[in-house]
Amino acid sequence: MDYQSCFAAAVTRVKAEGRYRVFADLARRVGTFPMAVHHTPSGTREITIWCSNDYLGMGHHPAVVDGATEAVRTYGAGAGGTRNISGTTHLHVLLEQELASLHGKDAALLFTSGFVANEAAISTIARILPGCVIFSDELNHASMIAGVRNAGCEKKIFRHNDLAHLEELLRSVAPERPKLIAFESVYSMDGDFGPIREICDLADRYGAITYLDEVHAVGMYGPHGAGVAERDGVMDRVTVIQGTLAKAFGCMGGYIAASDALIDAVRSHAPGFIFTTSLAPAVAGGALASVRHLRASQAERDRQQERAAMLKARLHAAGLPVMPSSSHIVPVLVGDPVRCKQASDLLLDEFAIYIQPINFPTVPRGTERLRITPGPLHDDAAMDRLVEALLEVWGRLALQKAA
Amino acid sequence: MDYQSCFAAAVTRVKAEGRYRVFADLARRVGTFPMAVHHTPSGTREITIWCSNDYLGMGHHPAVVDGATEAVRTYGAGAGGTRNISGTTHLHVLLEQELASLHGKDAALLFTSGFVANEAAISTIARILPGCVIFSDELNHASMIAGVRNAGCEKKIFRHNDLAHLEELLRSVAPERPKLIAFESVYSMDGDFGPIREICDLADRYGAITYLDEVHAVGMYGPHGAGVAERDGVMDRVTVIQGTLAKAFGCMGGYIAASDALIDAVRSHAPGFIFTTSLAPAVAGGALASVRHLRASQAERDRQQERAAMLKARLHAAGLPVMPSSSHIVPVLVGDPVRCKQASDLLLDEFAIYIQPINFPTVPRGTERLRITPGPLHDDAAMDRLVEALLEVWGRLALQKAA
Ligand SMILES: Cc1ncc(COP(=O)(O)O)c(C=O)c1O
Ligand SMILES: Cc1ncc(COP(=O)(O)O)c(C=O)c1O
Repeated sequence: MDYQSCFAAAVTRVKAEGRYRVFADLARRVGTFPMAVHHTPSGTREITIWCSNDYLGMGHHPAVVDGATEAVRTYGAGAGGTRNISGTTHLHVLLEQELASLHGKDAALLFTSGFVANEAAISTIARILPGCVIFSDELNHASMIAGVRNAGCEKKIFRHNDLAHLEELLRSVAPERPKLIAFESVYSMDGDFGPIREICDLADRYGAITYLDEVHAVGMYGPHGAGVAERDGVMDRVTVIQGTLAKAFGCMGGYIAASDALIDAVRSHAPGFIFTTSLAPAVAGGALASVRHLRASQAERDRQQERAAMLKARLHAAGLPVMPSSSHIVPVLVGDPVRCKQASDLLLDEFAIYIQPINFPTVPRGTERLRITPGPLHDDAAMDRLVEALLEVWGRLALQKAA
Repeated sequence: MDYQSCFAAAVTRVKAEGRYRVFADLARRVGTFPMAVHHTPSGTREITIWCSNDYLGMGHHPAVVDGATEAVRTYGAGAGGTRNISGTTHLHVLLEQELASLHGKDAALLFTSGFVANEAAISTIARILPGCVIFSDELNHASMIAGVRNAGCEKKIFRHNDLAHLEELLRSVAPERPKLIAFESVYSMDGDFGPIREICDLADRYGAITYLDEVHAVGMYGPHGAGVAERDGVMDRVTVIQGTLAKAFGCMGGYIAASDALIDAVRSHAPGFIFTTSLAPAVAGGALASVRHLRASQAERDRQQERAAMLKARLHAAGLPVMPSSSHIVPVLVGDPVRCKQASDLLLDEFAIYIQPINFPTVPRGTERLRITPGPLHDDAAMDRLVEALLEVWGRLALQKAA
């Protein structure tokens, strides 16, 4: 058995499909974001990042940097154990209280990441409910798919945001069986919203509970940054709200917020929660400062929306094929994996602009795109340079402009 | 369908089995560890922690605290993206190089935790190898079990450290099928070692590859803290070495080290690696400082071994039932879940000593224990108080003394 050839072949397959990933080696610098230093074999250079998920720049906000720094200086670099074995730091307790209160729920539970939150919570909830059926939006994130798979129960995939299809599937399952509907509030690759209220209506009608991933919304939507469910006034109707501390909150870690009973059950049963070291104090301290700041401050949210609207308008005006998106996410269609990568490389090499190409399997074939995430820290001059560079790249690669 | 009752019942079951967890709300303070502040409903008090997995106190080491602090101040509180989408910080690159070199391997790959490293790496490696069979020690950690389960391939569980049984199972599988042997170097609940050399011999004989979890060994064994495989001079014979940055290294995060081909394959295929925000700079910066320190410094390892030997000798002398352990882990047998919890509560409430009870399912029923982890920062006076307190508690609860 030639193992090394097997591993090499697994990589060759990825390369052949044009989706081999080369990571850009970056050093963001506090105070200069969205600028960053790009480390390359031939040296370092300054670039502008236009694809970060530190959507609001909170990872560099003085309150957050101070919160993280103070936590390290006070509590140390690590928690020193699992939550149950000496690893519950007072900061975890405070952060869980803050998140529960943010989402108007009894309780919240921290995980090492948003990925682990989805995997552990969905699989555990479904395993607790005898005979559970999971209804999952076809565009749900890989971490929710992992949770659904590891639940080991029956699942039904509904067409993206298709309420009629979801209802048809709900109707097909016996009324007495437990049902969990798993979906997202902002789908990160298209930037469209999930119909939260309507899905909650269906859940009520068919006796289901709802699990909502607000990873790309927390911090950014609703008057306190609790997400789209807060903005739409339906937070209390969602059974489980899941979020991350790693995107708009600018740190790392994930969580769920729900009823006391549900949280206690997941806390007591999920291996991915129980058997792992808890979040480092720096992360918990930074996140606590970030959540508190964004509950009180609307400025970052307003500025982000203004920047996103401005960028969409300018791309439209320039005739670039910006895809319809009602959120802060601005996808620009390329429609071919090789040229998508070429466009990204050109932007980086010649224009010092970093936008990661998004190819299959992250998005369907033929919809390969550049996914731009404008934020409060992208100023007009940076936007001028971006639009010009995109136009130049579109010309050089003869890419399709807007219809 | 009454969902809330279902969740409540899931918790009641755990309570009925005597294994409901109440987390101790702690604030370790840099400079005072193993002392910490215990937050209780009736106020705060000083306690001594004897069950931390910050085994060497590195989470509070000045070099590590400085490394973490400087990383936050320089790079910010979060990485801002997945590894592929703007989330590869220069610190990740340096840390992966450091870990590869520590273990004498081509390359290393970081994960958000040791749990995720095991789950993602084992399941991905097995899925890449067509028809793979996994041979897994029966006492492997929950995270390896998750990896084996999610691999979805055939598995064979061998009796703990039983080479004859492992060989019998290896022999039962067709020679041409890929085989992966997954085991640990230090089993954390008993403190015994896995027979690494002998398992590598079997792997050679039967054409298997080996996956070794060194979570409870990295930083602590071998002349550079690379683990038991380094100590035993067999590091080059192990295919994949897995470790954590959260225990002896005092931070958070996990990793694997292996050949270029294997690392690139896991990097390109594992959802738990690809679709999640990368480690926060504070964590990577602290870990880098910690790994570098422990590669060069033997003092912490020597002192830990001395403290562990001293504690075992003193417990023996006091007639307390210390379980046989050749490592730094010192388990003391109670043998009953309720009294194990009582002993732990008494120690905490009356003696300000915190040692978490370890009950089923973490250990087999009838072997419930207090698991003590003495480290370089536990001084003689603290050890005096510990032994006295244990004797007092053993007397009061009429627990079994050593045979
Ligand atoms: C919808 C969605 N859910 C969950 C996650 C995982 O969150 P985290 O990065 O905190 O692991 C992501 C992205 O990483 C995501 O896009
Ligand atoms: C043997 C073993 N492997 C892996 C892990 C997981 O490591 P981490 O805490 O970094 O998730 C643990 C404990 O947490 C463990 O005991």
